[in-house]
Amino acid sequence: MECIVHRVPMRDPGDVSAILRLIDEGSIAPREIVAILGKTEGNGCVNDFTRGYATMALSAALAKHLGIAAEEVPSRVAIVMSGGTEGGLSPHFLVFGVREYRHSRGQRKSLAIGTASTPVLLPEQIGRMPQVELTAAAVRAAIERAAIADDADVHWVQIKCPLLTSERIADAAASGGAATATDNTYASMALSRAASALGVALALGEVDREALDDREIGRELGLWSPRASASAGVELLHSEIIVLGNSAAWSGDNVIAHGVMRDAIDLPSVIGVLSALEITISGQLDEAEASCILAVLAKAEASRSGTIRGARHVMWDDSDIQASRHARALVGGVLAGIIGRTDLFVSGGAEHQGPDGGGPIAVIARRPR
Amino acid sequence: MECIVHRVPMRDPGDVSAILRLIDEGSIAPREIVAILGKTEGNGCVNDFTRGYATMALSAALAKHLGIAAEEVPSRVAIVMSGGTEGGLSPHFLVFGVREYRHSRGQRKSLAIGTASTPVLLPEQIGRMPQVELTAAAVRAAIERAAIADDADVHWVQIKCPLLTSERIADAAASGGAATATDNTYASMALSRAASALGVALALGEVDREALDDREIGRELGLWSPRASASAGVELLHSEIIVLGNSAAWSGDNVIAHGVMRDAIDLPSVIGVLSALEITISGQLDEAEASCILAVLAKAEASRSGTIRGARHVMWDDSDIQASRHARALVGGVLAGIIGRTDLFVSGGAEHQGPDGGGPIAVIARRPR
Amino acid sequence: MECIVHRVPMRDPGDVSAILRLIDEGSIAPREIVAILGKTEGNGCVNDFTRGYATMALSAALAKHLGIAAEEVPSRVAIVMSGGTEGGLSPHFLVFGVREYRHSRGQRKSLAIGTASTPVLLPEQIGRMPQVELTAAAVRAAIERAAIADDADVHWVQIKCPLLTSERIADAAASGGAATATDNTYASMALSRAASALGVALALGEVDREALDDREIGRELGLWSPRASASAGVELLHSEIIVLGNSAAWSGDNVIAHGVMRDAIDLPSVIGVLSALEITISGQLDEAEASCILAVLAKAEASRSGTIRGARHVMWDDSDIQASRHARALVGGVLAGIIGRTDLFVSGGAEHQGPDGGGPIAVIARRPR
Amino acid sequence: MECIVHRVPMRDPGDVSAILRLIDEGSIAPREIVAILGKTEGNGCVNDFTRGYATMALSAALAKHLGIAAEEVPSRVAIVMSGGTEGGLSPHFLVFGVREYRHSRGQRKSLAIGTASTPVLLPEQIGRMPQVELTAAAVRAAIERAAIADDADVHWVQIKCPLLTSERIADAAASGGAATATDNTYASMALSRAASALGVALALGEVDREALDDREIGRELGLWSPRASASAGVELLHSEIIVLGNSAAWSGDNVIAHGVMRDAIDLPSVIGVLSALEITISGQLDEAEASCILAVLAKAEASRSGTIRGARHVMWDDSDIQASRHARALVGGVLAGIIGRTDLFVSGGAEHQGPDGGGPIAVIARRPR
Repeated sequence: MECIVHRVPMRDPGDVSAILRLIDEGSIAPREIVAILGKTEGNGCVNDFTRGYATMALSAALAKHLGIAAEEVPSRVAIVMSGGTEGGLSPHFLVFGVREYRHSRGQRKSLAIGTASTPVLLPEQIGRMPQVELTAAAVRAAIERAAIADDADVHWVQIKCPLLTSERIADAAASGGAATATDNTYASMALSRAASALGVALALGEVDREALDDREIGRELGLWSPRASASAGVELLHSEIIVLGNSAAWSGDNVIAHGVMRDAIDLPSVIGVLSALEITISGQLDEAEASCILAVLAKAEASRSGTIRGARHVMWDDSDIQASRHARALVGGVLAGIIGRTDLFVSGGAEHQGPDGGGPIAVIARRPR
Repeated sequence: MECIVHRVPMRDPGDVSAILRLIDEGSIAPREIVAILGKTEGNGCVNDFTRGYATMALSAALAKHLGIAAEEVPSRVAIVMSGGTEGGLSPHFLVFGVREYRHSRGQRKSLAIGTASTPVLLPEQIGRMPQVELTAAAVRAAIERAAIADDADVHWVQIKCPLLTSERIADAAASGGAATATDNTYASMALSRAASALGVALALGEVDREALDDREIGRELGLWSPRASASAGVELLHSEIIVLGNSAAWSGDNVIAHGVMRDAIDLPSVIGVLSALEITISGQLDEAEASCILAVLAKAEASRSGTIRGARHVMWDDSDIQASRHARALVGGVLAGIIGRTDLFVSGGAEHQGPDGGGPIAVIARRPR
Repeated sequence: MECIVHRVPMRDPGDVSAILRLIDEGSIAPREIVAILGKTEGNGCVNDFTRGYATMALSAALAKHLGIAAEEVPSRVAIVMSGGTEGGLSPHFLVFGVREYRHSRGQRKSLAIGTASTPVLLPEQIGRMPQVELTAAAVRAAIERAAIADDADVHWVQIKCPLLTSERIADAAASGGAATATDNTYASMALSRAASALGVALALGEVDREALDDREIGRELGLWSPRASASAGVELLHSEIIVLGNSAAWSGDNVIAHGVMRDAIDLPSVIGVLSALEITISGQLDEAEASCILAVLAKAEASRSGTIRGARHVMWDDSDIQASRHARALVGGVLAGIIGRTDLFVSGGAEHQGPDGGGPIAVIARRPR
Repeated sequence: MECIVHRVPMRDPGDVSAILRLIDEGSIAPREIVAILGKTEGNGCVNDFTRGYATMALSAALAKHLGIAAEEVPSRVAIVMSGGTEGGLSPHFLVFGVREYRHSRGQRKSLAIGTASTPVLLPEQIGRMPQVELTAAAVRAAIERAAIADDADVHWVQIKCPLLTSERIADAAASGGAATATDNTYASMALSRAASALGVALALGEVDREALDDREIGRELGLWSPRASASAGVELLHSEIIVLGNSAAWSGDNVIAHGVMRDAIDLPSVIGVLSALEITISGQLDEAEASCILAVLAKAEASRSGTIRGARHVMWDDSDIQASRHARALVGGVLAGIIGRTDLFVSGGAEHQGPDGGGPIAVIARRPR
């Protein structure tokens, strides 16, 4: 099997024409598509409906091609929309497909993919241990489906998780059940990402089960996974998981590597990931080098310390622009400078995803033949 | 004479304690201060009062040390506040002082500074040829005061220019005089920056006087200066000009170089400026190298094409965050990645200041002895 | 015939469940639906995708019930989504249906409705006379379909018109055709609303054709219609028109009246409209009175003077929140105070729709039997 | 003694010229000024520096007139700046002065004022019982200074309280002391207002001391004062208290009344307050009536239920505009509709200040002779 990756632009969150063009041109068959990541141009926060809009547009378009109802599409294709293209980030889709490999299989490991999803999460589970454990179980299932034998070959676990809206919080309160972990909707996004990331860390053995309880979630930032990327959204009630790694069970020229940015401007770590892919850097990548890079996935976050290398930033104190929006713009600039492209999947809110103020980064590249 | 440069943080726009500390420590004498640039944490747009607040705080503090009234300070010290520290940019002041040089003068050129100001600009002059010409005259005066013999040695012309508020537009209309160039306050910032930049270009012989008339201002983006940096603000009614360059009439280890970013992610041009200062780059500057860099000055702008290297950006279509805010965050990220610092003076709105979507950049460094 | 009106809430822009419930309950049959107005919770500005999202969700849902493709729905049902529920405004749909009347027809006039649409508007037509004239023709067609014999019985003309995005502006420029009326996307919304409103005024004989040319559009604010309500959106390329009035050719208990708010806080004019509907006011409407009000339609705008009754407002100078957002919140508060409800269709940007800073208001009520 | 009140506009947060004009004209003597409330045009949230800017400008201007240092002014004049003039609210100052009364004293009670302040509040005290108790003590002191014998005659307690910034939170953490009540800066504003309001309720005997502990603060919304108005700001570290009421120990024609809005659109309660001042309402106040109203003070808040009279509002789920900004715009519209003016002191965040989603309102009027 081979995992193929296409990066295509969107003109607006309802525009899936570039994906349809891939299908029309024969670059990918509808049934080959296993996952679609999208970077949409909403605020990436609570009332970002560009994620739901894109999901609806994708579902409607793929339903016709797959001959199923639009409602059934998300159970066939993992759809993960991440809002926020601040700074110069360019709205785009990453389309992951799986096909039988046409060439003889080599010895080396190639890009592998597996998907899974959790059950629907109850409002009171969000941001708490049940979410951590349900996520961990789904991650293990996805790794198995990806046929990645060695956990060290897992390089990226993308999770789309639910959040709490005012309505969901009120419903939970009205039902007389347990209180939700927070009654602040924006804060619920952070808690849901935090629990998701710890679920990844638990699944990959990066943290001990004993070290975890509700109180650590979103607070004990010393616990983190260097391979988790979680994004919360109003458009789903369960979590979607996509595992990416390398595996000898897969073929093709594509390969993935990852690293961890220690802070938001940690360019050396980015260069390290490119080096691991045998891309050498002297200044900005030239066009030929850049064209080998199929996808850049990164998390961005404002450091809780309120500083970057000792200099104050304003991200947390700005009541006009949310911290995660500042952070995406910043990390997008750092990455665009070295890579020379702006269609980068930079997602906000990196709780337990790398050290405070930093975050994981992965690059998928086509190996030179 | 020697031009000394201090970069100090501010905790909020009213906090000038770090400058007072410089004075208390003897690092600079009040009478040596000729110009203060500040990067404050407002929105950098029309209703950014952090610039006026910082100006008031600086004036009050310096007045005591200079023994003059607060109102008189701006006529003694050129004060240029630029709002907007989006992404990871860190609010800071750049304090420029002039002192007699203690060591014997060498052969080489050193950092030179000169300041000047235009008369008060009438509402109907803003964004039109009178502003261009009054600016050009003031730039010439500042170059002369800086004792820069060769225009090729001018590397940066910082201008703080006025804008139109609703009240000023209404006043102009009520007075029965000529109409203002626009009745949109945000648009007036762009026009004022545009006229200022063309004033620099005219003063430096970069454009022909004949090529200019009101209709080109803010529109004919093929006309630009690679050394102009204009910033509009509600807190003044005239323009302040600060010219920075190198001159054999000055002494000391400080030196300035400039370049032009062709687009917002043009890292190679940034590396070019560093190379001109004999700073070699392989990835991010290390701490020792970074410590030699005294100031980074850059302009940021969203390209009118709506794209960066063919990929769509959302800066102009975002009605929640102004385009100049996105642009500052982006360019701040590109620069912070390579330089490893976030206290960078990135100013928004680069009309006629470099090519569309790009902008000038200058670096002041201490020469290794 | 009878025009029925249902007001139902939406939980998010993709939630049309309340409309489906109307159908399931038999309150309205899918084929009776002629128009749906929606007040969605986006920013109401350029990048407000909640309008397109709601349109897509409505189309998908109605397609199933009508047995047609989703793409065909907008040609059968006039769909007008207006973004922005600032302050306390509540997201909701107004569903207009037409059915045969069951009771014998009385002498009095009842609520009447007619819809029409313009051809696709080219980028260079937007905000110019061609848009005015194409709109006027469509308004006449809609009045005829509504069987309103006397233009004095037209009380509201709702228009959804297109805007210019960066991409459309660039396309127009690239095609070598005529320049667009503006290259500022937010400004294009105002120009498109302005041309639409003048189209209504022209159709209703409120302004002379000779008084109009491109230069007046959006500028000569002395020209206005007291019955036009235009809303611009990225989700369509032509204009949708819905005419509401009273006609003896229609039956039923519903009736409409309108007035003009002279400024944003002109409560007496609102009370005047209620009085015309025989609703007497002493303070806030009580629940029984409020329940007779089926829909409140109003336009909100920041006065260009920068003041309301001599006191300065900040709407135009605020670079964090667009002026139309402030204005909707304000007018929503004025109306909610007197009416005692928040599900009011307050739409922003009232260029040529009432006097500067004011705007038209209409109320649809059920006549007491 | 007589308490005089002047309401004057400001052109920007640094503009105190209208107050200086009052002094120049002899309408008030500098030494008579005891308190200045200001409604400034910032975002009213964490990074609203318009409050500090106005405070600095006021201090500098009054210092000259009082012959003291600017730093000493706030200890002589209670300065309370509240940010946020969303919707149509107009930036203005309310200047309260005390003078010897020239006419013979009547029997009736007249407007009375008293001020006090708490000690500096430590970061860990903010939003907790120590803040409640220190506030209560200061309120009692202010009531005594106002010579209000009966607590029933206290109609408004205005408090300006500190908030937590990222830096203060980090400092508290670094000092190894107790944790702060929250590490979210925006949330700290709500907690500080909440503790202040409970301090008022405690001082006025509206809640029992036994009913209070840290856990209730900001959560048990059933506990509230109908006379507290708290506003948090970055520009001070202690709390300023201003008590307004009626007292037979005071003279003059001014008088104050208050009421409680049960929700944000509770117009009947507003009418009730006006009636208490013998102002009869039929629709909007006419100019003569409106001119008797010297000041309108109100609190605005988004209901935690997420609804207003059953209809959903978006205030809490909007990540672009903070809830308190929506709420001020809404309540400003409700009040402006009935009163016919927009220079209203509507302050955001009414935790424990009236019922959930509502808030206290007070009106100061000149009695007809």
